[in-house]
Amino acid sequence: MSDLCLIAGAGRLPELIAAAEPGVLVAVPEGATPGDLPLSLTFRLETLGSFLAELKTREIKRLCFAGGLTRPGVDPALIDEATQQLVPRLMAALRQGDDGALRTLIEMVEEAGFVVVGATDLLPELLPEAGVLGRVEPDDRAMTDIGRAEEVLTVTGPADIGQGCVVASGQVLAMEAMPGTEWMLASLAAARAGGPLAASLPDGGVLVKAPKPRQERRIDMPAIGPDTIWQAAEAGLRGVAVAAGGVMILDREATIAEADRLGLFLAVRA
Amino acid sequence: MSDLCLIAGAGRLPELIAAAEPGVLVAVPEGATPGDLPLSLTFRLETLGSFLAELKTREIKRLCFAGGLTRPGVDPALIDEATQQLVPRLMAALRQGDDGALRTLIEMVEEAGFVVVGATDLLPELLPEAGVLGRVEPDDRAMTDIGRAEEVLTVTGPADIGQGCVVASGQVLAMEAMPGTEWMLASLAAARAGGPLAASLPDGGVLVKAPKPRQERRIDMPAIGPDTIWQAAEAGLRGVAVAAGGVMILDREATIAEADRLGLFLAVRA
Repeated sequence: MSDLCLIAGAGRLPELIAAAEPGVLVAVPEGATPGDLPLSLTFRLETLGSFLAELKTREIKRLCFAGGLTRPGVDPALIDEATQQLVPRLMAALRQGDDGALRTLIEMVEEAGFVVVGATDLLPELLPEAGVLGRVEPDDRAMTDIGRAEEVLTVTGPADIGQGCVVASGQVLAMEAMPGTEWMLASLAAARAGGPLAASLPDGGVLVKAPKPRQERRIDMPAIGPDTIWQAAEAGLRGVAVAAGGVMILDREATIAEADRLGLFLAVRA
Repeated sequence: MSDLCLIAGAGRLPELIAAAEPGVLVAVPEGATPGDLPLSLTFRLETLGSFLAELKTREIKRLCFAGGLTRPGVDPALIDEATQQLVPRLMAALRQGDDGALRTLIEMVEEAGFVVVGATDLLPELLPEAGVLGRVEPDDRAMTDIGRAEEVLTVTGPADIGQGCVVASGQVLAMEAMPGTEWMLASLAAARAGGPLAASLPDGGVLVKAPKPRQERRIDMPAIGPDTIWQAAEAGLRGVAVAAGGVMILDREATIAEADRLGLFLAVRA
């Protein structure tokens, strides 16, 4: 058995980690539907205290949070005795922005004696090197839009908003907020497909993703994959750029292949 | 005849100004569909030089830009002689963010000898006094969300992005970008109506609108009206807050009545 417990959220990342760590203990938030995983435990915030105690009896030393986790509600009736003393901090954490909430969660887990490891500590190959990954090169216009988007994210990141934005012809077409990249791109695709706005939106554009400067990278790291490329194409974009060292590419080969197939560039920015 | 030319964009504002300024000369961007206005002239950027010369012969001294204007493309084949010398600055302006583009346009018009007046110079009653305008008061939770939204807009405004955002339970659900408030609210309403995201979004929330600090208020002032209230309700929000002195309320009575009818608060923040 491994001394690692994988807290598995949505998406492909948990599967990649489980494949790389034989014998890992997998824990899934109650009610979530895990992917192709050796399911072992479920947990919920209301019983976090007894969940952590259970991990101790199983000789777990390291925790890895991987995949998308939604911010749960807390049902007071379900809080068990072992969790009672954690409740004030849990509730305060849930009222914070993402960065603050996750930092508090890590603190609590670490104070309980566990080491929190990031997905990229286990799978460093998820962080691509700087450069253009596929066959399509961004042209001058795309580079200007990338620069503007990076400037925007530099401003928004410290305020704990957005890990991404879309810029076309120098104008910000969309800012990522809590609902995430996929929703942002789907909304933009819908706007471009017709309706009163379609004619007034500049064409083309780029999606740029970067971590927020205070983002807790051990839990909450931005990621893209083949779906992101496909969604960007559906939204009429010409390419995707991500910050080197700060954004994971899940299924790198398939992601590059999708970019090449659809004629989008995929750039990793130093 | 008035010495004022109204450059009429989309929405209700041009009608309000035309009603307040008898004999005003109305000019509409070619291809736009004006509301209930005494139409007089059309113009396009490619012939801006001769348009301004025409205004001189009609003894126009003041220009008021009112209503939504979309950023037009420029067809080089349509540029006339009087506009030739303006082209480099026009093209540079169109590549800038909204604030920069509008500032350049105002500069060019002023250098041609016209005075640019803001809609609120002509109709100061469009700017409401601070306070709660309808019957519904924002509760503590709403006030916390308003505070967070104002904090976000303080950060995003200087970067020339967004005049509005939606916050619920401390989390930024949506940031306004180039497509505007209406699209932001419609996208949020769609996300809440169903689909994979619906369950994970916190309920309630507030829309907050405020001008960007460098916004050229003579041309591009944020506005709300009865439709905004209705759209906010459709998106599941509990109220709307705007910055005093910086956001116009078009059709104030109807806007307040709509807020009361739908049970939303409408707050003007000092």
